Amino acid sequence: MSIQIAEQPKITMDVFEQWESEVRSYCRSFPTVFSRAKNARMWDTAGNEYIDFFAGAGSLNYGHNNDKIKQKLVEYILEDGVTHSLDMATVAKGRLLESFVHHILKPRNMNYKVMFPGPTGTNSVESALKLARKITGRETVISFTNGFHGMTLGSLAVTGNKFKRQGAGVPLHHTVSMPFCKYHGDEADTIAYIEKYLEDSGSGLSLPAAMIIETVQGEGGVNVASDSWLRKLSELCKRFEILLIVDDIQVGCGRTGTFFSFEKAGIEPDIICLSKSIGGYGLPLALTLFKPELDIWEPGEHNGTFRGNNLGFVAATEAINYWKDSEFEQSIQHKGQWIEETMQQIKDAYPQIEMEVRGRGMMRGIAFTEAEWAEKLCRTCFENGLIMETAGTDSEVAKVMPALTIEAELLQNGLNILKDCARQLFTKAQ
Amino acid sequence: MSIQIAEQPKITMDVFEQWESEVRSYCRSFPTVFSRAKNARMWDTAGNEYIDFFAGAGSLNYGHNNDKIKQKLVEYILEDGVTHSLDMATVAKGRLLESFVHHILKPRNMNYKVMFPGPTGTNSVESALKLARKITGRETVISFTNGFHGMTLGSLAVTGNKFKRQGAGVPLHHTVSMPFCKYHGDEADTIAYIEKYLEDSGSGLSLPAAMIIETVQGEGGVNVASDSWLRKLSELCKRFEILLIVDDIQVGCGRTGTFFSFEKAGIEPDIICLSKSIGGYGLPLALTLFKPELDIWEPGEHNGTFRGNNLGFVAATEAINYWKDSEFEQSIQHKGQWIEETMQQIKDAYPQIEMEVRGRGMMRGIAFTEAEWAEKLCRTCFENGLIMETAGTDSEVAKVMPALTIEAELLQNGLNILKDCARQLFTKAQ
Amino acid sequence: MSIQIAEQPKITMDVFEQWESEVRSYCRSFPTVFSRAKNARMWDTAGNEYIDFFAGAGSLNYGHNNDKIKQKLVEYILEDGVTHSLDMATVAKGRLLESFVHHILKPRNMNYKVMFPGPTGTNSVESALKLARKITGRETVISFTNGFHGMTLGSLAVTGNKFKRQGAGVPLHHTVSMPFCKYHGDEADTIAYIEKYLEDSGSGLSLPAAMIIETVQGEGGVNVASDSWLRKLSELCKRFEILLIVDDIQVGCGRTGTFFSFEKAGIEPDIICLSKSIGGYGLPLALTLFKPELDIWEPGEHNGTFRGNNLGFVAATEAINYWKDSEFEQSIQHKGQWIEETMQQIKDAYPQIEMEVRGRGMMRGIAFTEAEWAEKLCRTCFENGLIMETAGTDSEVAKVMPALTIEAELLQNGLNILKDCARQLFTKAQ
Amino acid sequence: MSIQIAEQPKITMDVFEQWESEVRSYCRSFPTVFSRAKNARMWDTAGNEYIDFFAGAGSLNYGHNNDKIKQKLVEYILEDGVTHSLDMATVAKGRLLESFVHHILKPRNMNYKVMFPGPTGTNSVESALKLARKITGRETVISFTNGFHGMTLGSLAVTGNKFKRQGAGVPLHHTVSMPFCKYHGDEADTIAYIEKYLEDSGSGLSLPAAMIIETVQGEGGVNVASDSWLRKLSELCKRFEILLIVDDIQVGCGRTGTFFSFEKAGIEPDIICLSKSIGGYGLPLALTLFKPELDIWEPGEHNGTFRGNNLGFVAATEAINYWKDSEFEQSIQHKGQWIEETMQQIKDAYPQIEMEVRGRGMMRGIAFTEAEWAEKLCRTCFENGLIMETAGTDSEVAKVMPALTIEAELLQNGLNILKDCARQLFTKAQ
Repeated sequence: MSIQIAEQPKITMDVFEQWESEVRSYCRSFPTVFSRAKNARMWDTAGNEYIDFFAGAGSLNYGHNNDKIKQKLVEYILEDGVTHSLDMATVAKGRLLESFVHHILKPRNMNYKVMFPGPTGTNSVESALKLARKITGRETVISFTNGFHGMTLGSLAVTGNKFKRQGAGVPLHHTVSMPFCKYHGDEADTIAYIEKYLEDSGSGLSLPAAMIIETVQGEGGVNVASDSWLRKLSELCKRFEILLIVDDIQVGCGRTGTFFSFEKAGIEPDIICLSKSIGGYGLPLALTLFKPELDIWEPGEHNGTFRGNNLGFVAATEAINYWKDSEFEQSIQHKGQWIEETMQQIKDAYPQIEMEVRGRGMMRGIAFTEAEWAEKLCRTCFENGLIMETAGTDSEVAKVMPALTIEAELLQNGLNILKDCARQLFTKAQ
Repeated sequence: MSIQIAEQPKITMDVFEQWESEVRSYCRSFPTVFSRAKNARMWDTAGNEYIDFFAGAGSLNYGHNNDKIKQKLVEYILEDGVTHSLDMATVAKGRLLESFVHHILKPRNMNYKVMFPGPTGTNSVESALKLARKITGRETVISFTNGFHGMTLGSLAVTGNKFKRQGAGVPLHHTVSMPFCKYHGDEADTIAYIEKYLEDSGSGLSLPAAMIIETVQGEGGVNVASDSWLRKLSELCKRFEILLIVDDIQVGCGRTGTFFSFEKAGIEPDIICLSKSIGGYGLPLALTLFKPELDIWEPGEHNGTFRGNNLGFVAATEAINYWKDSEFEQSIQHKGQWIEETMQQIKDAYPQIEMEVRGRGMMRGIAFTEAEWAEKLCRTCFENGLIMETAGTDSEVAKVMPALTIEAELLQNGLNILKDCARQLFTKAQ
Repeated sequence: MSIQIAEQPKITMDVFEQWESEVRSYCRSFPTVFSRAKNARMWDTAGNEYIDFFAGAGSLNYGHNNDKIKQKLVEYILEDGVTHSLDMATVAKGRLLESFVHHILKPRNMNYKVMFPGPTGTNSVESALKLARKITGRETVISFTNGFHGMTLGSLAVTGNKFKRQGAGVPLHHTVSMPFCKYHGDEADTIAYIEKYLEDSGSGLSLPAAMIIETVQGEGGVNVASDSWLRKLSELCKRFEILLIVDDIQVGCGRTGTFFSFEKAGIEPDIICLSKSIGGYGLPLALTLFKPELDIWEPGEHNGTFRGNNLGFVAATEAINYWKDSEFEQSIQHKGQWIEETMQQIKDAYPQIEMEVRGRGMMRGIAFTEAEWAEKLCRTCFENGLIMETAGTDSEVAKVMPALTIEAELLQNGLNILKDCARQLFTKAQ
Repeated sequence: MSIQIAEQPKITMDVFEQWESEVRSYCRSFPTVFSRAKNARMWDTAGNEYIDFFAGAGSLNYGHNNDKIKQKLVEYILEDGVTHSLDMATVAKGRLLESFVHHILKPRNMNYKVMFPGPTGTNSVESALKLARKITGRETVISFTNGFHGMTLGSLAVTGNKFKRQGAGVPLHHTVSMPFCKYHGDEADTIAYIEKYLEDSGSGLSLPAAMIIETVQGEGGVNVASDSWLRKLSELCKRFEILLIVDDIQVGCGRTGTFFSFEKAGIEPDIICLSKSIGGYGLPLALTLFKPELDIWEPGEHNGTFRGNNLGFVAATEAINYWKDSEFEQSIQHKGQWIEETMQQIKDAYPQIEMEVRGRGMMRGIAFTEAEWAEKLCRTCFENGLIMETAGTDSEVAKVMPALTIEAELLQNGLNILKDCARQLFTKAQ
């Protein structure tokens, strides 16, 4: 492995503090300069090694610099395959379409058209909202408490976080925030709540164009919608001819154990947003899927300069090979259970600290009633070589979301660090 | 050069027609499957060669698969440099910051903080609008007739095109569209017009947070704002404490002959949006620049998953080397004049067809009073191996925008095709 | 009594059908031409007499053409007292201010400034919303399911009725509709629901400027907020520094048995809207009351041509005399109970028809599970000489709201008609 | 004439300062308590007499307490004619409809349906905007610089005044403010300006539902739209199928010399708003007129409690008698010229003070380049027994708008006071 990068004048945190905007954020939680990465490991310029339980906020399901994908990328670059193509037809794009249709959609009996809306999650969400409004001729979209869908104005309007919303600098319109599964406690039937608003013509709610939902709210605090809740929501949408948009940007591409997060619930969304790990290698890419009969776009009605990021196409095509048999799915389930058991052990070991273990597949979290524990735990983990982020509006959840491809031993090592750090912190607290 | 791609089952236009959404657009104008590209040349799967006067809508100023950049990219990938990093500090990002500051900003006496707002132009525009509204506590933003700034709701609200705006499916708010330079003819002083609205407290216009402008409107029809108009606009902004945002996404990075498009006018924008060619190799990347005193962001107040696209950082860093001396600038000026002269010759040769030659640097266009000529001309060019797109609301402008690095001979060949096609079409029309 | 009006060519329903807009509505439910009225009686041009249980939708609490007020009005007109004065100071306006302060506010220990926002309820609501937003610098206002506050855009945005809202022709913004008392059934604690949205910074709800509420929803279906619910709501507002606006336009001025509808609950709204019966004689008048410390208006920041309707001032001043002792209050309570008992008897007599008796004071309603019964009942009553309207989004409530001054005998006659019509209808239904 | 009012404890300005909101405004310009009024004269409690050149901001075209109308009102009240009727059919309403159709519309060959939208100007404007949006299915409405249409949110959004707009406390949407006649100077063709925005699909302007215009802007500064400008505007609306709404609330009912202000221009608005003097006696009343084919309202889609103000109907019906022959029109023209000549004399007498004489019919104004002169002039006039208000965004216009029925001698006296006060002020200024 070359060490050429290190030969140049050294990059330190000063560079970022001096020249980059105050808006920077993760570099404050993980204050070191990273140079290399492989699968679930990262190294900084000082040579320290970290286990990565963060995985690019869900963009690195196949790990950092996955060797199989890497090979395809380098070959493609060396051959001078088209890199940037807007939405012209290219071989790389065609291959991705074919592969996605034949290895992802068809085996799941899913019939969807594929749109390339621009290479980020928020592009996909914006395109989904536009399409839903165009199809129905309605303006309102129902979003859910603690949902997160992106930072451009259309996506931000369906995002719950007050701090992010205020950043808009303008009031956010045409959306209504309804309670997510169990938002008002285990007893309250939030589906019935929404139904009443839809049924009653005096409720103040216009018939919405769409509902947009994450089946597991990643940023919102690892909140899991139950399968039955999702099914009822889907039925409600059907009954009122409201389009159902599933934002699978963070929890799709295998994160919950199946390619799409809603497979277990057995629902059929009208529109699906994909990004993050769809790009395979951490490269910017996003797809919007919708049922063929909904494809009423005019040519160019939505567009974007980088919707033809061919390196992303190449990487995505290779990544799809992980889904050709069921082995990958099984390993996710297995590892996910492992994480959950560890978290449960932590919870059981310190009954005086109020915790709740949440999540599905390989997205798991410990929610703390006293929010600050989550941040303390993540900070301690980082000091011990484990990268983890918090989630939830008050950063009250310590979230574990490693590469799906993480080696068993490394996962064990990481979980051990987590347990050790918990012990270190919570024993003192007793 | 390997031919492995061609060995797989062949990708045809059918793949796109069957699986991709109707929203696809450029693949309708250029209906062939492209496989390889180099500098200003592209090849399709049938082996046809095309000269590219389109350059990824301005994303490929340094050409397709620029060899210098390519080498750095491959090295970086082979070394397992961090690919995806959100906004964590990485060596690649640090290098880009240093290079951008030392080789672009400092030589121009520009003091700006750098924000990575997400990897597309619309991310940059959305971040600029948010920041301007946050700083001023005002909501309204003035945009300009025929301006184009992006397709997410915030950017779309400052975009003039009716078709694109209607795609929003909701009314677009908090913006007012004012007349661009010469919008009401050469005589009408549109600055005075705007001034009157600002001065008169009965005009119905709220004091805006910002004005957002392209110095040359690329999508809008290659409309050039004069230097004096830009200076007056800048003074108007200063007088009323309105922030001036220059969207240099398409016309920055050298397109007009200088790195920033506004250098000749001598104005100092408060906020600058960069994307497209800033990524060097056609890779998704965007920057938002603002004066240090405007950097009042809270950490994480705007974010995005792919704001840490390190391949983009590596490519951008290498591309900046083109700006280390004045040679590159001179060659752009030179080639730009060449294009303009050719267009002028075409105009002069067919006086019965009403044309206007427009543009600056290497973005030039022929505007036709009868709009359909532009499309016919571009179509004929494509049939003759030259890729060109139309611009303007009614697609009334045939736009020439090759890689800045295009070889002189190839530029000549392309211009010859353009002249030949014009002759073919316009002679018949006489 | 003169019969001069009848001597002119006769006015028939044709006049209205031919010249008046299709928007006309009550004249369809009560299709006859009315000529004279006195207290709770109306006569049409054919000489038919009607008992009026509708009272101008709550504007005629003191009856039609109340003799005491009538005398003052005629005197004032004959003396050429100022009739129209914008917001110049007039004797008539001064007298009203003094009387209102000394006989209404002071005895209730209420300290409020008085604003004349224009002579209709919607003017008062619009002024209240403006003031609340100005004071807090916030935009969102919480309204309640099935609330009704008026038909101009600001008021309509806080109104629940979908049909009315769609009439706006534009999306209605800056408001959120929260569940009214018992909206989700007797068990669901809607206060806790709202509280959760306010507490959780991920709920998608911005901190609102105000909540606007009717303590009994008149148009919305005679829905009564319980005293404890109102107190909790008031506490919630205090805790989050949200202004509480009580819209007492329909249920104020004695309708519920006390001058203000919220006296029993013991809450202290920040802003109070009054109109309808405040004008005493059915004359256009509205007041907005607010605590002195909230009076941060600039002169003329809200205005209106007819805010100085002096005939309204004269009538209102005289009407206030009804409140100088407790006798009037007692009679309302008494009559109200009487109405309720009659309704309860109807309900008990026809167990096969699902009914619910609702209301407070002299606003009472029978809500039918099968909505059409309400309209049938009101139609039958009208055919039998009793004027009553329906309420509720689906017109599912038969509402009784006579003049508070109705003679005991006439009230009895009216209630007898109601019972007879119910018998006529519901016996058939068995 | 009785003096009973004066016998009660005296009303002083203290009452208003103590109890009325700070929002009060005209009582600050005219700080005295008025008790009686007749035609163009008012008296205060101290017995001072004032000549009224203000006429209730245009609501008293037939003078204060017009004797003919007064007689009808008193008769109606004494007979117990229905006072308040919502939109039930009453004899008084039927008479007004007949009279308005036969004596106003038919002689002018106008075929319009009549809507009673609630009793104030802003109710009429809100109903007009709703209807235009409903008919066209479009949201945007074009309003004009310095237009004034009311203070509820819908009307405020088409009002130009920044101070009033800011009072909304929320951004005002769905409207675009275009330049009024001569807004950019005598040379600039503002019709061409608007046309360009409508023609160019890149202008950023959506096709609007309607344009709303005052032919003479009363509050905006007595700005007169020329007949040819109005005709061109009307043609533009026809060409683009945009509805033309004329707000004749202040300048209708004879103010400009004809019943409708647009008669001279010969245009045919699609929708007309009337209020202020339509009520005859200064009583709250408003009408919305529209062509029969536009009457697509659903019953009750717009409503209001006081849309059945029968005293207003009675007064309005009697006032219409003024229009049965041409004598009244001629007297307005004559008096209007008289006012204009006086103003011209003032302008000519003090060349060192920059003035412009503006207006039509009996709405005239002197606009001062140095705004403060207008206020000084009005204040001095008031001190000398003449009531006049300022107009214009900066209160730069001294406006004269007496009752159309003002006695010739009194008009002369008032104009003499105006001349004297001008002399007093402007001579000193030399």
